[in-house]
This record gives sequence, structure tokens and C-alpha cells, in this order.
Amino acid sequence: MTDNRQCKLIARPQGQAKRGDFAFETAPAERPGEGEVLVKVLYLSLDPAMRGWMNEGKSYIPPVQLGEVMRAGGVGVVVESGDPGFAPGDHVVGMTGVQEYARLPVKGLNKVDPRFAPLPTYLGALGMPGLTAYFGILEVGALKDGETVVVSGATGAVGQVVGQIARIKNCRVIGIAGGPDKCRAAVEEFGYDACVDYKSEDVRLKLREHCPKGIDVYFDNVGGEILDAALANLARGARVPICGAISQYNNTGPMRGPANYMSLLVNRARMEGFVVFDFAARYGEAIQAMAGWVAQGRLKHREDIEEGGVDAFPEVLNKLFTGENFGKLVLKVAEA
Amino acid sequence: MTDNRQCKLIARPQGQAKRGDFAFETAPAERPGEGEVLVKVLYLSLDPAMRGWMNEGKSYIPPVQLGEVMRAGGVGVVVESGDPGFAPGDHVVGMTGVQEYARLPVKGLNKVDPRFAPLPTYLGALGMPGLTAYFGILEVGALKDGETVVVSGATGAVGQVVGQIARIKNCRVIGIAGGPDKCRAAVEEFGYDACVDYKSEDVRLKLREHCPKGIDVYFDNVGGEILDAALANLARGARVPICGAISQYNNTGPMRGPANYMSLLVNRARMEGFVVFDFAARYGEAIQAMAGWVAQGRLKHREDIEEGGVDAFPEVLNKLFTGENFGKLVLKVAEA
Repeated sequence: MTDNRQCKLIARPQGQAKRGDFAFETAPAERPGEGEVLVKVLYLSLDPAMRGWMNEGKSYIPPVQLGEVMRAGGVGVVVESGDPGFAPGDHVVGMTGVQEYARLPVKGLNKVDPRFAPLPTYLGALGMPGLTAYFGILEVGALKDGETVVVSGATGAVGQVVGQIARIKNCRVIGIAGGPDKCRAAVEEFGYDACVDYKSEDVRLKLREHCPKGIDVYFDNVGGEILDAALANLARGARVPICGAISQYNNTGPMRGPANYMSLLVNRARMEGFVVFDFAARYGEAIQAMAGWVAQGRLKHREDIEEGGVDAFPEVLNKLFTGENFGKLVLKVAEA
Repeated sequence: MTDNRQCKLIARPQGQAKRGDFAFETAPAERPGEGEVLVKVLYLSLDPAMRGWMNEGKSYIPPVQLGEVMRAGGVGVVVESGDPGFAPGDHVVGMTGVQEYARLPVKGLNKVDPRFAPLPTYLGALGMPGLTAYFGILEVGALKDGETVVVSGATGAVGQVVGQIARIKNCRVIGIAGGPDKCRAAVEEFGYDACVDYKSEDVRLKLREHCPKGIDVYFDNVGGEILDAALANLARGARVPICGAISQYNNTGPMRGPANYMSLLVNRARMEGFVVFDFAARYGEAIQAMAGWVAQGRLKHREDIEEGGVDAFPEVLNKLFTGENFGKLVLKVAEA
């Protein structure tokens, strides 16, 4: 019997999720049945969307129920298999949850190759954030060669990929990020033409300077004031893919709506929400394109791998909301 | 020499436009040059957008300059012509401004036939509001047969046409209007399936009742709380054409942004602004379709014709913002 440390949601957080909203328990790892595998979790993906999953109420997926293991994507290694398609030693990504061992149906698992890219990358640029970036900018953003693109959360898991895809498509790309280190990395590491530091600069003014013809695509990860600053600088026919609103997820009061939304009318622009799952039938195409860019050195990726295992989950997650993380936030659960 | 009473913008209004923001002057009517006509104005179109034209700053058309005759669409009769294509007695629509006589280039004028429809109708259902409705619901709204449609300002100049086009396209159509008289007219006169009275009912709750499968297209004329109530009830893949935000135009503080905009993400929905001028190349197609529906009795129209001439402009305009008008608001300037 192997011990399985688990993190369960036991209360709906008010504002920022706190340690007391979770219970940490140790249970025996479960044996896989037919069509299932037991996965030893190595790395967990920590994403802004997780905060939304903790809330009651209708959204694009059901909320995590109280008493359930907290939902999370992860990468791990098969240790026992009840399915002929998977063997012990295979590396897989899937919704493992915040725990050390996950008994999972093989449907919904994908094999990954640690020789091609480090395992955490399959939670970032070559995982859900990368897919979100790919379909968000190319399909929802309807990106055209040579346009002016602005990306908030420019060095985050999704933003870093959005910016680089836009550069690959010969666009002028302006990032928005918090602090000089992230802004420098945006330009030097990810190839942004410029990056605005929202912590020390007037975003609206700086976007006007950097985008004299206006913004053709504003890819929004953050909402709030920064969304308003971008709306104030749209070009005619602009597209605004809404990927997230991290500035608002811990609000205990009402969301802040974009006061400048009438810029959509003046500029005949559109703001459009999307959920990456809707593009599932096309994941293969996207991963192939992005793996090619990674191999060519055109798509760089940066992960922020935090130690501490399952027990560190609440505090590590909150780094997303304070802006302390830098790149795709990953929680290491076990040695590969 | 004919006297021409004119209403000029002399101050940028703070909040609601006031009489003191305008000067009323009498000048001689000007003789038309070559390629011009002198039009005796009969009816003026009063539209929510006029409030925006009075503000400084970039929008989809330049603001009215201080000292200029207030911009307005109007219908009138040619009294003197410098162009072989137009003869005295011809009825025309165009941007006459708030004055009794307008010297205008014939480019930008369209002849209309008072035997087919009453002249004010060419400022409403068969004019800019009708065109706005047509392209807004069919093109921007991408309306499909049998969908659920919600229209705010349901009995207004644009809304009444949107609702009826949606009915013609076999949609379930719910209006939102202020007061029992307008709500009754929405159902009995314009064929809405139901109409919510925002003055006495909980719009969010009522929309949920009337649209159990969610709203496929929400055509927004008003912004503010009603936009939020509609966003809270979107169906998957919904479209939200942004035609206007009359609830916000007299704000002296910041606009109220739609706090529920993240419903766009959850529902993979889009909010899109538009300006009818962009469809100018297709006006003929739209007018032909709508004139056909008018002739068949399938497209009803209601105008609210106010007396008082040019001098009554400020007070009559404000009826739009208090909700006192009922149907397309028209200011009568002279007897036809």
C-alpha cells in the first residue's frame, strides 16, 4: 500500500484562497481497474482558472465539490496499469488533481515524451496554456500578419506563448507585465517589441505611444484597469479575446466591468470569450505546430517550478494572484 | 430672402444637454451653388447618438464644433436646385442640421416618396434607425432562424425594427422597455413574445424566466444594469451587438462597464460594436427588404412627432433620455 497525500477543498474561499479552505489527508493509493491506470504525480499545473473552480455556481465546468480532491492538471508516470495501451513507466498528462497518486481512466490521458521537452513544459507551452494561447490568438483573435498585438500577463503561462506566436506571424507585439524583471524578460527572452510595466507606468499612455495606429488584437488575461487601458487604444476592427481576468478573481465585491467598452462601438471591434476545450478536436494540429517552433528555437518557454509538494498548494497558488511567479507556475510533487 | 432659424451648439454639455448649450439665431437662407440644393426642412430625426456628437474627442465621426449648427438628419423638400438631378418639390433625406433651411450638396441626399410612406418614416423604420436595426441584428448579431432574441429599448426607433425583423426570422423575441404602455405596445403592436418592464420588474430574473435556454442574441441599446442583466442570461455562443448605451450618455462620472462581461468567456460569446455607415454599400438591399415588409404589413412603425420647431430642440431631445418618447422621436419643423 502506498500513501497518497491529498489536498481537498473543504470551504468556498472568500477572496484569496486560504490554507483553511483545504484539508490535507493521507489515504492509501487506489489500485487501477480495467481501463484505468495509477499515476504517480510529478508536477502539478497551477492556473488562475483554479480559483474560479472553487466557487459555487454555473461556469464552463462544474465547481469542485466540497470534500473533493482539488481539481488540477498534472504530469506523472504510470506505476500500475489496467489498460493495454499504457505501461508502467509511461509519462502522461491529465487531470490528476492535487494529490500524490491518481487513479484515472485512460480516456483523457495523453502520453508525453520527456526526451523531447522537460516534463513541466507539457503543463505550459506544450500543454493547456500553450493550446489556449494558440487558439486564442489565431482563431478567436483572428490574427493577421503584420498587425499590432498587445498581451497582458505577457510572461505568464499563456501570455508568453501568445506573444511569441504573434512574433512568428510578423506582428508588432507589446507586452504588459508587472515589474522590471518581467518586462526585460518579455523583450529579451520572448521577443516582445516592447513591454509596459503596469506597476510603474501609465498603461493607457504607454500603449498609445507604442501603438500609434491602435491595437488590432488585445489578448486579455487580466481584466480590470488594464483591460480599460487597452480598450481606450483599439484600432478599427480590433479583436479582444477574453482569456481570463486574474485581477478580479479574488474580488469579494462585484467584478469591475470594462468602463471603456463603448470603444467597441466606435471602433467596430469585438470582445469574445473562449474556452480552450472547445478546440479539443484540433489539439493535435496545435501541438504539432508548437512542438515544431520549440524544436526550431522560435518558441521559448519558462516555467516557475515551486517545491513543497501537495501541502504547499494554497500558498504557491496565491503567487499567481500577487504576481510573484514568473512564467508558467508548476508545483513539484515528486522527483521524476 | 427667406429667414432660416438655426440651432447652434455653443457649449459642450455637462450631463444632460441644456437650453443654454445652444444659441438660436435667424440668418438668411443661402442660395444653392452648382451641385447643391436648398432644402426646406420638414422633420428632424432626434437620436441618442446626438448626445455623443456634442462631446469633445475622437469618436466614429468628428464632434459638432462650437458655433456650428447642431448636426441632425432630416427630411425636407427641395425649394431651389443647382443640380439637374433634383427639382423643386422633390422630397429628400440627408444631414440637414437643426435648422429650417439647409443648403446641401446633392451628394449625400436621397430622394424619398411620400406616397409610399409618411415622411417621418424615412427618419425611422425606413431610415437610419431601420438600417441600423437591419444590419445590427442580421449581420453583427448573425441571427439564425428560431433563436431567442432580447432587445432593449424595445419600442424605440431601432429596437422596434430589430424585434420585428427577429419575429420575421421566426425567432422568440423578448423586449425590455420602460412602463406598461410601452410593454403592451411591444407585444400587441410589434409582435414581441413578451416584454419586461425594467421600471417595475427584476430584469435579470424575468429574462431567466422568459429565456430558459438562454439568450442567443442580445441587441443592446441601453448599456448599464440592463446590459448586465442580459449578460447574466446568455446562451452558449451568444452574440451581443452593441448599438448604443443610452443609459450612460448623460453621465458626468465614468461610464458603468458591464460587470458581468466574463459571461462572454463562460458562454464563448461575443460583444461587438458597429456603426451603420460601414454598411452604406448595402443600404439599397436593406431598404428594399424593409419596404417590402412594410408593404406587406409585417413591419409596423411608430413615430413620436413633437411640435415646436427648431426652438424646441433641447427639450424634445431630452425626452429620449428620460424615456418620455414612445417610438421614433421626430421634431416637426414645418408643414409638409
